[in-house]
Amino acid sequence: MTGRSTMVGIVMAATMGLGTDAALAQQQPPLSAADSDPVKMGWMIGSPPPADKLIQFSNGSHFSFPQTRWSFANFRRFLPTSNVWRGDGAASPLPRAERSDIDAVTFQPLGQSGTMTWAESLAANYTDAIVVFHRGKIVYERYFGVMSPHATHIAMSVTKSFFGTLGATLVAEGKLDEKALVSQYIPELKDTAYGDATVRQVLDMTVGVKYSENYADPKAEIFDHVRAGGLVPRPPGYSGPTSFYGFLKTLKKEGQHGEAFAYKTVNSDVLGWLIRRGSGKTVGELLSERIWQKLGMEQDAYMLIDSEGTEFAGGGLNATVRDLARFGEMMRLDGAYNGQQIVPKAVVDDIRNGGRKSDFEKAGYKTLPGWSYRDMWWVSHNEHGAFMARGVNGQAIYVDSKAEMVIARFGSHPLAANAYNDPTTLPAFDALARHLMQ
Amino acid sequence: MTGRSTMVGIVMAATMGLGTDAALAQQQPPLSAADSDPVKMGWMIGSPPPADKLIQFSNGSHFSFPQTRWSFANFRRFLPTSNVWRGDGAASPLPRAERSDIDAVTFQPLGQSGTMTWAESLAANYTDAIVVFHRGKIVYERYFGVMSPHATHIAMSVTKSFFGTLGATLVAEGKLDEKALVSQYIPELKDTAYGDATVRQVLDMTVGVKYSENYADPKAEIFDHVRAGGLVPRPPGYSGPTSFYGFLKTLKKEGQHGEAFAYKTVNSDVLGWLIRRGSGKTVGELLSERIWQKLGMEQDAYMLIDSEGTEFAGGGLNATVRDLARFGEMMRLDGAYNGQQIVPKAVVDDIRNGGRKSDFEKAGYKTLPGWSYRDMWWVSHNEHGAFMARGVNGQAIYVDSKAEMVIARFGSHPLAANAYNDPTTLPAFDALARHLMQ
Repeated sequence: MTGRSTMVGIVMAATMGLGTDAALAQQQPPLSAADSDPVKMGWMIGSPPPADKLIQFSNGSHFSFPQTRWSFANFRRFLPTSNVWRGDGAASPLPRAERSDIDAVTFQPLGQSGTMTWAESLAANYTDAIVVFHRGKIVYERYFGVMSPHATHIAMSVTKSFFGTLGATLVAEGKLDEKALVSQYIPELKDTAYGDATVRQVLDMTVGVKYSENYADPKAEIFDHVRAGGLVPRPPGYSGPTSFYGFLKTLKKEGQHGEAFAYKTVNSDVLGWLIRRGSGKTVGELLSERIWQKLGMEQDAYMLIDSEGTEFAGGGLNATVRDLARFGEMMRLDGAYNGQQIVPKAVVDDIRNGGRKSDFEKAGYKTLPGWSYRDMWWVSHNEHGAFMARGVNGQAIYVDSKAEMVIARFGSHPLAANAYNDPTTLPAFDALARHLMQ
Repeated sequence: MTGRSTMVGIVMAATMGLGTDAALAQQQPPLSAADSDPVKMGWMIGSPPPADKLIQFSNGSHFSFPQTRWSFANFRRFLPTSNVWRGDGAASPLPRAERSDIDAVTFQPLGQSGTMTWAESLAANYTDAIVVFHRGKIVYERYFGVMSPHATHIAMSVTKSFFGTLGATLVAEGKLDEKALVSQYIPELKDTAYGDATVRQVLDMTVGVKYSENYADPKAEIFDHVRAGGLVPRPPGYSGPTSFYGFLKTLKKEGQHGEAFAYKTVNSDVLGWLIRRGSGKTVGELLSERIWQKLGMEQDAYMLIDSEGTEFAGGGLNATVRDLARFGEMMRLDGAYNGQQIVPKAVVDDIRNGGRKSDFEKAGYKTLPGWSYRDMWWVSHNEHGAFMARGVNGQAIYVDSKAEMVIARFGSHPLAANAYNDPTTLPAFDALARHLMQ
C-alpha cells in the first residue's frame, strides 16, 4: 500500500468509522491525549504556521490524527459550509449546579478487571468537550485543547440523529409516508438500491445496498462517497461523481431490504434528500427552523456542503457541545423545551422504544449487546432505557431519562470506530447516571 | 481571448474592481436589477439545482454576474472561512424612526442632466441591502433578492477600512510604529517591494510596487494574487504560490514609495500581516475582540481564508448590513459606541482629516475629485467632511457627521469598479444627507 493510500485509508477510517483495525495496524501506538493536545502541539500557530505545524485540505492532514485534535474544531477552515442560524432571540437559559464529586466516580471499563475514574476516562477517550445536564442543570462541563463554550466541533454521525428525528417528525406530520418507496419522492433513485426501499427502511438503516465501508479495499464504495462529496481531495484525472446526490444515483442493491440493520452512511444522505423533498427545505434550513431557532441555541451551527450546495446529512453538522446537550435535553423531555413542543412526543416515544433487536444483532457490534437502532438513534434497552447519538472518534449525545441525565461529548480519538472508546465511555456514562440518582 | 480567459477576466474585474472598461466591452448590456433578481432567476433552487441554475466554484460562476446577485450573499458556500465571533452578549439596540419620505428624495446623477429619485437609485445600483442611520436611529432599511436583516454579504474592499482602522489603532497604541519599515515586522518581505516601505505608506497605499490590476493583461499580477489565495480555481499544473503570504513574497518594487496614492489590494494583505505581527492575533481574531464583540454586533461575521488559514484582509469580510452600519456609526461618534470608547478618537480624527490630496490626485479617479485616502478610508473633503469605505460592485459605508447620518450598502452591480455606480451613489447619499438635515 502506498503512502497515499495509507493516508486515504486513515482518512476513511476517520470519516466513516469502520474497519479501523487495519488503520490501527498501520499506525504507531497513537500519542496520548496529553501528548496530542493541539495547543501543546502548536498546530496552525504562526504567520504563516511553519510547514510542520500546518494543517491543510490538499494533503488530507485535516483528517489525520493528531491534527484532528485541532481540525475537528475547525472544519469550516477547510471546506465550504452553510450556516444553521440560531435566530435573533436570547439563548435558552442553562442553570448551573456544578458538582465537584463527579471526577471521582469510578467504573469498570468493558473487558477489563480494574477500575477507572470519570476524570481518567476523559483522557482515555481524547475528550475535547463534555457537558452533563442533570435535571436540566449543568452539573459538569469541561473543555480541552482548542475547545471552549462557544467553539464548534464536528459532530460526525451524531448529525444523523438530528435528521432521523426531523425525518420521523415529517412522517408524523404526514409530509413523508414511512411505507412509501423512496422512489416516490426521489424518482432519480428509481434504478438504484433505493428504488424499492421504503422510507422506514432508510430511517432504520435496514436497506440492502452494495456499499462497503471496508477501507482496506481500495474499490470500496466509501471512497467514492467521500470523494464525491468533496470531503477529501480528489486525485488528478478524477472522473467520478462530484456531489452526494450524484454518488447516491450509482448505488446498487445487494441482499434484501428490511431484514437486517446495516450501518451505512449513504442512508442518511438519502434521508436528507427525502427531507428536502418532503419539507421543501434543505436539511440545514429545516434544522435551523425546527431545532436551532426553537431550542434557543447559544451559537449558530454549520453544515459541510458539497459542490451543489447539498449538506452532508450523514455527518456534516458542526455545533457547540452545549447546543448538542440542549437537543439531548429536549429528547429527554419528550420533545418539549424552551416552553414549546419542538418534536412530537410520539416521535420521541418511537425512538425510545427502539428498533428490532434481531435486526441489530446481525450487525455484530460487540460493545452494544441487546441494542437496536431507530430513526438514526442507537437505543440501549438497558435498565434506564438510555439512547444515544453516536459519531466516530467519540462524538456522543447520551440520554438517560431515568437518571434525568443528558451527556454531550466531543472527542478526537485516534481511532474512528466507537468500539475503541465504548469500553471507557458506556460504563462511565452509566456509572455517572447511577451516581447522580443516589 | 479564449472563453476561459474571458471568464477569468470578468472574475478579476469583479474581484478587484479595476480595468472594467474591458470587461464592459466583452459583455452584452447587463440585465437590469429587476431582471437579475436572484430569487426570480432561481439560482440554487432544487435538489439538486438544475445545471443552468447551479453556481459553483469549479467553473468560476460564483464570481460571474448575474450569479453574483446570489453568491455575494453566500461566499462561505464556495470557500473556506473563519468565524468572526460576536460574543455572547445581547446585540446593541438599534432604535427605529423610519421615514416614508426618503424614497422620493431626488438628486442629479453625476454627468447627467436629468434627476433620479432615491428609490430609483437602488435599482440603478443593483442594491442588495441598505440601511440608513440618522442620529443613531434606523430611518430607512431595505433588502432585495436573497438578503435579509440577518443575512451576510461579502463586503469586498470595505473590509480594508476595518483593518485600516485597526492598524491605525495599533499605531496609536504603540504596537506598530508607522515610521518603521515593514521589514522590521516582516523580515520575510525584506527583499520585496515592501523591504524599504514604511507602515504608514502601507496604511495609505503610497507604496511603489509592481502589481498590475489590469486584468486585460493575462500576465498581470492580480491574477497571481487571487489564484494564490484560492479565491478562483487554479489551472491544471499550477505551480505558483498557494497562499496570500506566499504571493506577497514575490512582489518587486516599481517607482518610489510615498509619492502617490496607488490603490493596490496587496497593501491591505501586507497590513493584515503587520497586524498579525503587531498584535499577536490574526486579523479575524482582532476584528472579533476589538470590534464585533465590543460593538454588540447582531450576527457573527466571517472571513475568507487561504490554504494556510490566513484571512483575506484585502476583501474577505462577510457581514450583515446592520453590523456594517454599526461600525460606521461608531466612526461617526468619534470611536465611541455601545457605552465604550472602541477606537481612539485620535484615530478617527486622523481618518477624517484624510491624506494628501496631491497624492490622491495622481491616481486619476474621475468620480472622486478633491478626495484623499487615509488608513484605508476614502475621504471626500466635501462640505460635510464625509468619508467612505468602498468595495467593488457597490459595497459602501458612508459617514456624514455633519448630517449625523451613516449609510451602509451592499450591492452586486454587474461592473466591479465603483466608477460605474458612483454617478448614482454619491449625489444620492449627499442629497439624502441634506434632506435629513432639513
